[in-house]
Parts: sequence; structure tokens; C-alpha cells
Amino acid sequence: MRFEEIKAGAVIEGGRRTVTEAEIIEFASRYDPQWFHTDPIRARDSRWNGLIASGWLTCSIAMELAVKSVLADSESIGSPGIEQLKWLNPVRPGDELALRIEVMESRTSRSGSVGIVKWRWILTTQAGVAVLDLIATSLFQRE
Amino acid sequence: MRFEEIKAGAVIEGGRRTVTEAEIIEFASRYDPQWFHTDPIRARDSRWNGLIASGWLTCSIAMELAVKSVLADSESIGSPGIEQLKWLNPVRPGDELALRIEVMESRTSRSGSVGIVKWRWILTTQAGVAVLDLIATSLFQRE
Repeated sequence: MRFEEIKAGAVIEGGRRTVTEAEIIEFASRYDPQWFHTDPIRARDSRWNGLIASGWLTCSIAMELAVKSVLADSESIGSPGIEQLKWLNPVRPGDELALRIEVMESRTSRSGSVGIVKWRWILTTQAGVAVLDLIATSLFQRE
Repeated sequence: MRFEEIKAGAVIEGGRRTVTEAEIIEFASRYDPQWFHTDPIRARDSRWNGLIASGWLTCSIAMELAVKSVLADSESIGSPGIEQLKWLNPVRPGDELALRIEVMESRTSRSGSVGIVKWRWILTTQAGVAVLDLIATSLFQRE
């Protein structure tokens, strides 16, 4: 999608993909080795009633879907940050996550050289439960 | 570290670790396959002057350091989210990232069952350049 197609008010369905127990454990073993992300037995008998994904894996999956659906063929040059990020509910093995993107603002920098998009990314499970809600700013090269 | 040791005003040095080009490309190939994270040649001739890490890898490395230095032997049970997250400067192959944590608030829920910590995590390169600045809330089990 090109920057010019990303207009305020637009809603973009970003596709979906399933998370496995293996991926949850692999990601967390490397970056977030807390027992509720890595130890299915201990997690089962805890307040979490089973393994849950690292929130950073959840964010990474949202990113993966955003790249596939929007950024890959855009003029994207990165992001300065996130304004708000909520891990609303746990992500569990077998969950199929779907990304929905709501474009809040889309404008060009004063110099005209950079496109600036503010958008809300919401990740939802197959049961319709929202698991991630964030507001990001993304930048796009303008010639 | 135990919840009771995490007091407002405390500053925790969270250790450091080096990021390699291989890790930058591997992470991005899976979760953030944009050319400035995956293609060293194209990145070299771009505004970025070389490969830069996915912001989600940067966050994941901050998490890794936070788990090692604070969370691993704590009563941590997860996080509801992030209040602010700034990717201030690019992370490049060979950068050695150091985590500094500033505890902003530490309190117990009204019921007494959960410890709530608000803290600022700042990741800095070996050159003293801040690359990540976030404010997170973390929850701890209280018996």
C-alpha cells in the first residue's frame, strides 16, 4: 500500500495467523524467560491456567501482519514510537490472531519530505477477544 | 529481586549485551521484514547508512535484560501495558545495549493481592546514545 492510500478514517484488515506453543516458548526462552511464558506445567496450575505469550511476541506478530498487509510495498522508513500499548488479554497456544488497523491521522511533514501516519492497531483472537491495542506513529519517505 | 525491594526512586542497572547483524536480520525476517532491517546492501545506500534493528527486537532485548536483572527471581505475573514507548535512535549491528530502570511508583492494589510497579526503562548504546525509552506497568503476586 502506498502512503497516499493510507487516509484518515480508513480501516485495514491486516490478515491473521495462528500462534503455536512452540513459538511462544521459543520466543520467550530467548527474550522473556518468565515461567508463565516458558513452562507449560507450572503455568497450568497458576492464575493463568496455561501458557501465555510474551507481550513482545504479541507485538511482533502484529508487526508481521502489518508488514504483510500494508508496509511491505509502501515507502515505510520506520517509526519513532508508540503512544499507548495495552496487552488486554493473554494470548494462548493455538490462538488465531487477526489484525485490524484504524488510520487516525495521515499528513505530510512541513518540508514535504516525510509522510506521517498515526494509526491504531488492534489484535483479536478467533473468539473476538482483543489482546493488543496500540497507537503507533509510522513514517514514510516522500520524494 | 522481590517486589518489596522495588521502591519508588530506585535506579536499577540492568546489565548489557551486544546485538549482532545476524540477530537483527533473523528477528526481522520473521517479524518485521522491511528492507532496512533485513537487507544490508540496500540499507547501506539509504538514509539509514546501514542496517538498523526492528524496534520490536530492541524492546525484546530490553525485556531480556529486565528479566535477567530484576524479574526472574521476583513474583512477576505480567504487564497490562506501556504508557509511552520511544525509539529514539537506530540500533545497529555491534551495538552494546545497556538497560537502566528508574522506578517511578511502587504500590499494592487495594485488595493487597497485587503489587503494581510503574517504571521507566532506558536502553543506551556503548556510545551513550539512548535508543529506547519506555514507561511500563508491571504486576507482582502478593500472597
